[in-house]
Amino acid sequence: MKIVIIGYGSAGMTAAGYARVFNRKAEIIAFEKRSYATYHPCSLPDAIGGVLPMESLVEEAPKLPRFKLYTSTVVEEVDRSAKVVRARNLKTGEKIETEYDKLILTTGSVPFVPRAIKVENSESVYTLKTVEDAVAIRKDAEKYRRAVVVGGSFIGIEVAHALRKIGVDVTLVEYFPYLMPGKLDPELAKTVKEALEKEGIKVILGKGVSLVSGPAGDKRVVAGDEEIKTGLVVMATGVRPEVTLAKQTGLEIGERGGIKVDDNLRTSDPDIYAAGDNVEVKDIVTGKPILSLLGSTAVRMGRIAGINAAGGNLTFKGVVNVWVVNIEHLQFGAVGLTLEMAKKYGLDAVAVTISAPQKLSIYPEASELTVRLTVDRETGRLLGGQVMGKSGILCRLDVLAVAILKSMTIEDLAELELAYTPSLCDVIDPLHVAADAALRRISRK
Amino acid sequence: MKIVIIGYGSAGMTAAGYARVFNRKAEIIAFEKRSYATYHPCSLPDAIGGVLPMESLVEEAPKLPRFKLYTSTVVEEVDRSAKVVRARNLKTGEKIETEYDKLILTTGSVPFVPRAIKVENSESVYTLKTVEDAVAIRKDAEKYRRAVVVGGSFIGIEVAHALRKIGVDVTLVEYFPYLMPGKLDPELAKTVKEALEKEGIKVILGKGVSLVSGPAGDKRVVAGDEEIKTGLVVMATGVRPEVTLAKQTGLEIGERGGIKVDDNLRTSDPDIYAAGDNVEVKDIVTGKPILSLLGSTAVRMGRIAGINAAGGNLTFKGVVNVWVVNIEHLQFGAVGLTLEMAKKYGLDAVAVTISAPQKLSIYPEASELTVRLTVDRETGRLLGGQVMGKSGILCRLDVLAVAILKSMTIEDLAELELAYTPSLCDVIDPLHVAADAALRRISRK
Repeated sequence: MKIVIIGYGSAGMTAAGYARVFNRKAEIIAFEKRSYATYHPCSLPDAIGGVLPMESLVEEAPKLPRFKLYTSTVVEEVDRSAKVVRARNLKTGEKIETEYDKLILTTGSVPFVPRAIKVENSESVYTLKTVEDAVAIRKDAEKYRRAVVVGGSFIGIEVAHALRKIGVDVTLVEYFPYLMPGKLDPELAKTVKEALEKEGIKVILGKGVSLVSGPAGDKRVVAGDEEIKTGLVVMATGVRPEVTLAKQTGLEIGERGGIKVDDNLRTSDPDIYAAGDNVEVKDIVTGKPILSLLGSTAVRMGRIAGINAAGGNLTFKGVVNVWVVNIEHLQFGAVGLTLEMAKKYGLDAVAVTISAPQKLSIYPEASELTVRLTVDRETGRLLGGQVMGKSGILCRLDVLAVAILKSMTIEDLAELELAYTPSLCDVIDPLHVAADAALRRISRK
Repeated sequence: MKIVIIGYGSAGMTAAGYARVFNRKAEIIAFEKRSYATYHPCSLPDAIGGVLPMESLVEEAPKLPRFKLYTSTVVEEVDRSAKVVRARNLKTGEKIETEYDKLILTTGSVPFVPRAIKVENSESVYTLKTVEDAVAIRKDAEKYRRAVVVGGSFIGIEVAHALRKIGVDVTLVEYFPYLMPGKLDPELAKTVKEALEKEGIKVILGKGVSLVSGPAGDKRVVAGDEEIKTGLVVMATGVRPEVTLAKQTGLEIGERGGIKVDDNLRTSDPDIYAAGDNVEVKDIVTGKPILSLLGSTAVRMGRIAGINAAGGNLTFKGVVNVWVVNIEHLQFGAVGLTLEMAKKYGLDAVAVTISAPQKLSIYPEASELTVRLTVDRETGRLLGGQVMGKSGILCRLDVLAVAILKSMTIEDLAELELAYTPSLCDVIDPLHVAADAALRRISRK
């Protein structure tokens, strides 16, 4: 049996590893167009910010038996009738042709810049996806000392923070009137804005960038009625599923622009699986297809696609989309739906926000956590949670992730048993406080 | 409506607070035999160890409308036919008699010293339950500089660590051949022993203390074939439900020695609720009654008993018994059943232990977590988890607590969606690694 994997990012690498363990006899081949095997995409901002050396981002591919990885190699064609993949080495031009029994498409995503942004001169205008991008951004940042970051979601915020950390004069521009649109409700997003401003970052909200012009080091960014002079520009305006090959191959694409797969992560061709950013997944809260675009989702899908391609039969249940951002003095994250998103989906939802001590307040370094819960008014079912604080938020996000996955109500959450020792937490956790507040809110209606 | 609460510890205080919010009209009265209203029992070791000032342990009772707390007052009789409680002020001798509509028994637990330990001279022999105990232990420790702690479970370990922290020469004696018997499996308990020894604590295992003699400061402890000279002795040999009043009142006592209650936390008298250490609860994993004896359980029960006594109708589903201990350089905890306990219950269980990085290993301060899972061999259902490491264990214990509560399998855990950002965690969490190891272990059989 021969398994071919196209793309060796988070999903592809995970698929290869699990396929290997599940089926020791299968031959596994992976193609990756990058020149290096594996890297840590989610750590790019930390490398820009000097938390990590750039060199630590790239790692050797794990040595697996009967596994061959082709780097610097792009797959140009999948011939489904012959079950053959045709690839080309980008450095040597060498053509590689290989048959497959099962194919796994893990082509990931590509940065996306909206058409409304006219880039007249692309010198020192970057997106952030690869190590090369991070190296170039860092180099320009050290040289020009001024940067504009366009886009106030995960990557935009992380990059702005990282650049500020190395002393760069940073302006962050977001088209929506608040940061993390769709990911945090405005009241929590405001705290993120204030935290960035406290670092010295200029945050411009509610203004769309229309023009980027000028040469490297002397760039001009027009955002609404403002014109910003800067040295370099980072476009953190989102990513899109990389489905070029999937389309050429005639695989079905879903309504959100990702490859359509079934519960076993099979595409419309039963011998082809897909996993990662290039795939649409089911939102467990709404039941609707979405693009998750999270590294954690890519790894979870890679595991299941790898095992299933190797002969297994696992089901991918979907995502609650839990995420977390750490800008050191502030951590924030969410899972499920914000109130705003719940309303967009037409749900009758309410939300409550509380702040409560993360650990018993008589202890040194006790700090407050803010928790906001989105709740279905009728059933009390937990639809989403947002958590913010100086530390200790991972724990609460993970608990909420499992709670939402298991369709728990706020009464379930209010009486949830959690570990307690006073030097680490409080016996009535911020999650309990939030659930109780939500219960009171709903019973008043 | 009048609600009377007997005992104002974790369960009683919580019951009062929730009853107050749930029913704003009810009159609420609480009796507490201590002279102070509220304190933090779980923080007593930290106060002995100087992490907290002793004064911070005692707090004022929260001011609630239509709520009266009698301190230094012991309830001597509950007359169920007249629905009257008779109490006496321990300082003034004044008798207090009050009617009730609903009564809540939150009398907690009392320290217990096995009969096999003969205490010939009780000078400077302590249990640790109250602030007075902590003050006395600390004072003697500073004076005599040598202590023997009898009992190697939660409190014994925390007290030994605290005394060592203030420079005391500490010997910890445990009757069983390893620490945390029934709470951790031997291989993890060994790590706890080594951590304590690294602090300079002498740990004696597998030896029962038979005799404690000698005056304060010059005490003799006989443990098996060893005789230890010491200054003071702390008996951390466990606690028992305080059910004296419940028995006098004729309430049904369960097979484990705690008050028997139904799912609404009603005792055999429908007008009397009970919550906290004095009550037997259902172990969610085995379905059998156990004594939980955790502060977190007391608070959860207090909430439900308080709300139900005030007219609500909540169900207490039982406990998975998640606990955590923090001795600063090591944190450890568990939930559900150890392998040893699973076998005692006659379950066909297997266990796997793994160590994996708590966060992406290229980051500074990345450390390893050890996770041990107990799994039902036939169904793959998660029966228990033990977690140990320098930091970050709370998160995993809480996730396991919810997972076990919701009857998740190791496949559910292996593919569980958790928050990911590389500076805080790894995309394949130690819980995932452990679940995968358990899956491989079971499939081999």
